[in-house]
Amino acid sequence: MNLHLVLRQLGSLILVLSVTLVAIFIGAYGLGDEPFGDSLSTHRYILETAGISALIGVVCILIGRKKQTSDSMGRREALLLGSSSYVVGSFIAALPFWLWAKESASEDHPFQSGVNCLFEATSGLTTTGATILADISLLPDPLLFWRALLQWLGGLGIIVLFVAVLPMLGSGGRKLFKVEAAPGQSGVKPSIKETARILWIMYVCFTAIQIVTYKFAGMTWFDSVCHSFATLATGGYSNHAASIGAYNSHLIDIITIVFMVLAATNFGLYFAALQGRLKVIWEDPEFRYYIALLVIGSIIVTASLMGSGQPLVTTTGVATAPTAGEAITQSVFTVVSQQTGTGFSVSNFDTWPFVAKAVIVFLMFVGGCSGSTACGVKVIRIWIAIKVLLDQLERAFRPHVVRPLKIGKSSIDDGVKLAAISYVLGLFIIFTFGAGALMVLESGNPSCDITTAATASLSSVCTVGPGLAKVGALENFNWFTDASKILMCVLMTMGRLEIFAVLVLFSPRFWRST
Amino acid sequence: MNLHLVLRQLGSLILVLSVTLVAIFIGAYGLGDEPFGDSLSTHRYILETAGISALIGVVCILIGRKKQTSDSMGRREALLLGSSSYVVGSFIAALPFWLWAKESASEDHPFQSGVNCLFEATSGLTTTGATILADISLLPDPLLFWRALLQWLGGLGIIVLFVAVLPMLGSGGRKLFKVEAAPGQSGVKPSIKETARILWIMYVCFTAIQIVTYKFAGMTWFDSVCHSFATLATGGYSNHAASIGAYNSHLIDIITIVFMVLAATNFGLYFAALQGRLKVIWEDPEFRYYIALLVIGSIIVTASLMGSGQPLVTTTGVATAPTAGEAITQSVFTVVSQQTGTGFSVSNFDTWPFVAKAVIVFLMFVGGCSGSTACGVKVIRIWIAIKVLLDQLERAFRPHVVRPLKIGKSSIDDGVKLAAISYVLGLFIIFTFGAGALMVLESGNPSCDITTAATASLSSVCTVGPGLAKVGALENFNWFTDASKILMCVLMTMGRLEIFAVLVLFSPRFWRST
Repeated sequence: MNLHLVLRQLGSLILVLSVTLVAIFIGAYGLGDEPFGDSLSTHRYILETAGISALIGVVCILIGRKKQTSDSMGRREALLLGSSSYVVGSFIAALPFWLWAKESASEDHPFQSGVNCLFEATSGLTTTGATILADISLLPDPLLFWRALLQWLGGLGIIVLFVAVLPMLGSGGRKLFKVEAAPGQSGVKPSIKETARILWIMYVCFTAIQIVTYKFAGMTWFDSVCHSFATLATGGYSNHAASIGAYNSHLIDIITIVFMVLAATNFGLYFAALQGRLKVIWEDPEFRYYIALLVIGSIIVTASLMGSGQPLVTTTGVATAPTAGEAITQSVFTVVSQQTGTGFSVSNFDTWPFVAKAVIVFLMFVGGCSGSTACGVKVIRIWIAIKVLLDQLERAFRPHVVRPLKIGKSSIDDGVKLAAISYVLGLFIIFTFGAGALMVLESGNPSCDITTAATASLSSVCTVGPGLAKVGALENFNWFTDASKILMCVLMTMGRLEIFAVLVLFSPRFWRST
Repeated sequence: MNLHLVLRQLGSLILVLSVTLVAIFIGAYGLGDEPFGDSLSTHRYILETAGISALIGVVCILIGRKKQTSDSMGRREALLLGSSSYVVGSFIAALPFWLWAKESASEDHPFQSGVNCLFEATSGLTTTGATILADISLLPDPLLFWRALLQWLGGLGIIVLFVAVLPMLGSGGRKLFKVEAAPGQSGVKPSIKETARILWIMYVCFTAIQIVTYKFAGMTWFDSVCHSFATLATGGYSNHAASIGAYNSHLIDIITIVFMVLAATNFGLYFAALQGRLKVIWEDPEFRYYIALLVIGSIIVTASLMGSGQPLVTTTGVATAPTAGEAITQSVFTVVSQQTGTGFSVSNFDTWPFVAKAVIVFLMFVGGCSGSTACGVKVIRIWIAIKVLLDQLERAFRPHVVRPLKIGKSSIDDGVKLAAISYVLGLFIIFTFGAGALMVLESGNPSCDITTAATASLSSVCTVGPGLAKVGALENFNWFTDASKILMCVLMTMGRLEIFAVLVLFSPRFWRST
C-alpha cells in the first residue's frame, strides 16, 4: 500500500476544494452590492474554510511527499483514495455551514450543531439530498450554492472513480462497460486519465445544457445552476423546501425528468455515442431494462393514483383532483426522481396508496444504471440476479445443464454472477441492519415507526433523499438523534461507494503489504 | 415426465391418509365410553373423510396404472410428487375440520369456512403451526390429534424428501450431507429406500422417547403424543391456546427446548452417529454454528429482557418480574422455538423490547439445520453466503486471488455458492413480496400494520407459526381476509418445499419431455 501517494492525491483534492471556496467568495462579493469590507464580514466563513482546507491539503501533500520506487496508483490505493476523499471531504464540506451558523445564524439554528452540518455535507457529497433544514431559503446564497456544488462534485467523483478508475466495482465485471468494450474493437485502449477527462467534459456539457434549458423555462440563473448541479449528480438538493414543486411549472418538471433520466444512464454509453456508435445506447440491455422499469413503474403508480380517486397534494400543499394529466406528471416525476436516486419532489407521495409507495420503494432499491451518478443496486445487477435465480430453478430438476448467461452478446462467468447477486444481498443486509439500528437508536421516539426507519435506511444507502412517513418529501432529518444522523452518514457513504470500497478498509488483508 | 408413476405414488400416499383416518376413528371409539352407534354419529366426519380420500387415492392409482417402459423415479418426478402430495394432502387434510363444523359445530365457528379449514390443514402439513382458532380446546380430541398428526406426517415427508430422495435441494449440494458422505468412506452407498427407512425409524424413535419423557413430566398421554408430534416436526400446534405455557412447568419447558433443538438438527448426523461415528455431529460446522446462534441469540434476548426491567408476561397472562431465571427460561424457549420454526410459546414476546424482537425475527429467517424438519434459509446457507460476501470484499482489491471456500474438510465450488446465495436472496424476495401482498390484500383493515404483514409473511415462508403484533403468540389468523389466508397457504407450501420444488412447476422447461 502506497500511503504517501494516497495522501498526496487526497491533499490535491482538498486544495481544489480550497480554491473553489475562494472562487465562491469572489463570486459572492462580485454579485453582491456590498463593499469588500462588509462582504468579508458577511462571508468570512467561506474564506475561513478555504484557509483551513488549504492548510489540511498542504499538510497532506507534505506528509506524502516521499516518493516510492514504484509510484503507481494500484487498485488498493484507488479504493483508499476514493473512500478517504468522500469521508475527509464531508468533514471539510461541513465547515462553511458550521462557521456560518456560529457567526451569523440564530442560536437555535440546526447548523449550530456540528453533527447536523456533517449530515448536510455528507448528504451533499454522496449525492443523497436529504436535508436537516425545514426552511432552506433562510440560508445565504453562497451556502445554497455550496450545497449544490457538493453534489455536483460528488457525482463527478463517482463517475470518474467507477467508470475510469475502478470499472470492476461498477457492476461486478469490466466487460459490462462500453467504455472498455468499445475501444477494444478499434484496438486502442484509452488511458485512465483520458477516459476521466472525456467523462468530466461530458458531465460539464450536460450541466451547461441543463442550466440554459432551465433558464429558458423561467428559472433565475442562480436557481438554474444550483438545480442543474443537483440533477446531474442525481443529488436532489433544492433551494426550496417545496423542491421542484415550488416552481409550479410543468415545463420545469419535464426538463427535470429528462435530465434525471440522462444522469442515471451509463456515462460509458455517451462515450460510445461520442465515437459515433449511437445505436450502442439502445442496444445496451441495461439501458433498455432501465427505461422499461421507469415506464412500467410510472404506469402502475399512475393507475394506482387514478384508481384511488384521492386528491393529489403537491409539495406546496395544493390539492388537485387526480386527473390523468396531473396523475401522470406526478407519477412520472416521482418514479424517475426516486429510481434515479435524485430525490427532487413535486408531490407529497407519502399520502399515496400503498401500491404506489411499494413500487417507489422497490425502484429506490433498484436504482439507475451502472457507470452513472445513480445509486441503489443498479439495473444490471438486478437483471443478472433475476437470471441467476431463474437458472437455479432449472438446476433443481436438471442439475447438470449449463446454460450460458449473456448480456447483449457477451456471456458472463460465475464470478460476475456471484459478484452481482452478492451485491444485491449485501445491500439488502445493510439496509435491514440500518433500519434495525435506527429503530434501536430512536427507541425513545414513538413517532419513528418501522416505515420511517426502513425508508430512512433505504433512502440513505441508495442515496435517494426522501423516504416515507417522517422522512417523506415534506419532512426533514433534523429530528433524528445525533447517533442516528451519524449512522445515516455512514450508510450514505457506504451506499455511494458501492459498499465494498468502504468495507474493505476494515479488512486486515487490505492493509497487508503483500 | 412419467406422470403415471407420480399419480400412482400420490394415490398410495392418499390411501395411507385414509387408513390413518380409519385408525383414528377406531381409536376415538375405543377410548370413548359411547356405544358404536353414538360414536359413529359423533365422529362420522372421520369416516367420511376416510371414504373420500380412499376414493381419490384409488382413482389416482387407476389413472396412473399404465406402466411405462422406463418406470423409475427421476428428479422431476420426485419434485412433482413432493409438491403435489403437500398440496393435495392439504385439501384432503382440511376435510375433517370442515365436515365436523358442518355436522356438529356452532354456525359461527371459523371452520364453517372452507378457506379456514384449508389454512389450518396447510399450516399443519407444512409444519407451520399458525392457527385459525382462538379457543383450541373446543375442538374434539380426534381433531386435535389430526392436527398434530398432520404436522408429524409433514415433517416426516420433508426429511425423507430432502435427505433421502432429493438431497441436492437440501442445501445446494449433495456433499453437504453426511448421509451421502459417510458411506462413501466405507465404499457402500445405501439406496434411497434404505436411507428413507432408517430416517423414519429414527423419527419414530425420537417421537417415542419424547412422548414418554413428557408423560413423566406430568402431561396426559394424549397431550404427550400430540405435543411430541408437533415438536419433532418443528410444527408447533398445541392443544391449548396458551401453547406450552399452559402447563406452567419449567420441566416441560426444558424437555420441549431439548427436543426442538434435536428436531432442527440434520437427521443425516444421527444417521452417522448410528454408524458409531459420534464425533461427526460435533465436527459438523453447520451444527456448531446452529448451536452458537441459539446460544448467542438467547444471551442477547435475555440481556435485553433483564435490561428493560419490564415485567414478563406468559401466554397465560401471568406477569412476573424479569428475574434471571425467568428471563433465561423465556428467552431460551422463545429463541429455540422461533429459530427452529416450531412456534410453541411460553411468553407473549410481542411485548418484549425491539432488540429482543429483532433477534427473534432474524433467527426465524435463518432457521435450523439442513436435512431437518426446520424451515427458513438454513444455517449452512447463511454460513456459505457470509463467506461468499467476505470473499467478494477481498475481490474488490485483489480481483485475481482465488481462496477455496471450505465446509469442514471439503471445499465447495461456485455452483454451490451460487445456489446458497440465490436461496438466501430468493427467500428474502418471497418474504418481501408476501409482506407487500398482505398489505395490499388487507388494505381495508387499518390494524394490519407493516409489522404484522411482514412477520406474517416471514412466519409463513419459514413455517414458524407466530409473528409479531396482530399475529403474535397470543393471536390467531382468523381475522385475515380469505385472499390473505390463501396467499399464506401458498407461502407456507413454498417455504416448506424449499421454494424451488414449487416454482419449477411453473417453468415450461420442467414439463418438456426432453
